[in-house]
Amino acid sequence: MSGNSLQSKLAGAQSGVMLFSITPPRRNTAPERVKEIAEVTVRRLSGLDLDGLILYDIDDESDRVAEERPFPYLPTLDPASYHADHLGDWDRPTVIYRCVGKYSEDDLRGWLDTADTARTLGVFVGASSGGKPVQTSLRRAQQLHADVRPLLPLGAVVIGERHARHGDEHLRMLTKQERGCTYFISQVVYDLNETKNLVSDYFYACREAGITPRPLIFTLSLCGSAKTLEFLGWLGVQVPSWLATELRESPDPLATSRREALAIAADLKDYCERLGMPYGFNVESVSIRKAEIEASTDLAREVAALLRS
Amino acid sequence: MSGNSLQSKLAGAQSGVMLFSITPPRRNTAPERVKEIAEVTVRRLSGLDLDGLILYDIDDESDRVAEERPFPYLPTLDPASYHADHLGDWDRPTVIYRCVGKYSEDDLRGWLDTADTARTLGVFVGASSGGKPVQTSLRRAQQLHADVRPLLPLGAVVIGERHARHGDEHLRMLTKQERGCTYFISQVVYDLNETKNLVSDYFYACREAGITPRPLIFTLSLCGSAKTLEFLGWLGVQVPSWLATELRESPDPLATSRREALAIAADLKDYCERLGMPYGFNVESVSIRKAEIEASTDLAREVAALLRS
Repeated sequence: MSGNSLQSKLAGAQSGVMLFSITPPRRNTAPERVKEIAEVTVRRLSGLDLDGLILYDIDDESDRVAEERPFPYLPTLDPASYHADHLGDWDRPTVIYRCVGKYSEDDLRGWLDTADTARTLGVFVGASSGGKPVQTSLRRAQQLHADVRPLLPLGAVVIGERHARHGDEHLRMLTKQERGCTYFISQVVYDLNETKNLVSDYFYACREAGITPRPLIFTLSLCGSAKTLEFLGWLGVQVPSWLATELRESPDPLATSRREALAIAADLKDYCERLGMPYGFNVESVSIRKAEIEASTDLAREVAALLRS
Repeated sequence: MSGNSLQSKLAGAQSGVMLFSITPPRRNTAPERVKEIAEVTVRRLSGLDLDGLILYDIDDESDRVAEERPFPYLPTLDPASYHADHLGDWDRPTVIYRCVGKYSEDDLRGWLDTADTARTLGVFVGASSGGKPVQTSLRRAQQLHADVRPLLPLGAVVIGERHARHGDEHLRMLTKQERGCTYFISQVVYDLNETKNLVSDYFYACREAGITPRPLIFTLSLCGSAKTLEFLGWLGVQVPSWLATELRESPDPLATSRREALAIAADLKDYCERLGMPYGFNVESVSIRKAEIEASTDLAREVAALLRS
């Protein structure tokens, strides 16, 4: 696998991108422990057929919902620093998320200026709620990218649940595309119907506008406990009611959610291929439990095999 | 196949019932043509692995929705008379629908009194809208059944779309069950998620109440044209927006809807078997075009094979 294959697949609006996403260690982790975590992670992921890694940038989203967060918000290491300082052994590209509201224009400009386009891609994430004070707006960050470093591949997040509520997520995608985004990464997908509605609306809007649709990478995540299910709800992930019940009732929710994630992946693959919509997958682990992390690695292996089949 | 197997499967709350539904010929059809239609139908269906036939009772539902009906309402022969007069060669049980609001209590009492329980089952359907004047209410018709002929297996219709709107269709099922209904037949299923939500809510409500769930027979129907899609919408069938678009864009909507109906059947089979929910299938043809009727026969063959697999 060439070190540049992720970038060229995305640039060519091809299907088949396979990613795995992790959250950097907590900021209060001891330095030697951070090193150890990075080594274990690289070893674990190197064996997988991945085009790249995603590093999330975690923001305190307590402004977004009134309910208490099921897992506490703990600041994590900056993904760009974690990448620079600890993931030198990772030999494939890394997609670095930036919750742009947390950073000053100068910070973002500095990062854009120095990012190694051979190893790095970016995803800019806007504020988690409209009323939140931000240092830099998403729109302004996208302008900085266009001004400073348009060659750094820039992606955007896509939220199927927002489409279910407002029906305009495909228009947001087109706007982001106009502003220089060349690929999209979804929030965790549990609602197949709403995800297909979004893909359909986006695909046909592109066709109508005579625009080539950009790759959409679907994020899959396991749910190994009632607590994780609650956390998915808090994050705004819409788990269909029958499935939430099945997960709660299951003696082995990890196996149940694995079966469901694979079924969703297979369905989205068939659907996108019928349409001619470029797509890929990203496997994320929202939990820090060992069993769930191991199961996520297995899921990524299975989804990669499905993608290459 | 024993002539009584449908009744015994339903009585035992077993899975695996396979039905095919037809609408009797229009009332203004010439008698010799009615005879011919019946002969062709019996020949066509005898080759299929069916537990029984459903005869629909068509009511003028123009009160239910403001939009114009895509296909005109044409009165059809009474299903009980059509069964008695023309389907003598059909050697398996027949489920006779009764839109009870159309009939007087005496009519219904007479039918209940004389129905041959070895060959006949009933499904009572309530008025299509709350404001419609009726001769007999659904509740009263169910009482008549309990008084006059409780041994005649009585079913009820189930509408997943009503569950999506009001969230109480599973409670309606429990009420109908209390009033003597021993099985359920769904409206045409195109929305898998909503159907599974209903099954889940019904199944767990039964478990909580310590009641054995009764078989739910899922109705599948093809959609071979934009006109049929419009008619499904008029009937209140919720076709997910991505699928409605795919059907409209498809060069071969009949093949597209066949693939989708089979996928829905396979998914519901897996789901019900995981739960332990008794289920079956019914294939209906809402269209009178030859190609759609033939494709429905093929679909029934494939669904029956899936059910027995």
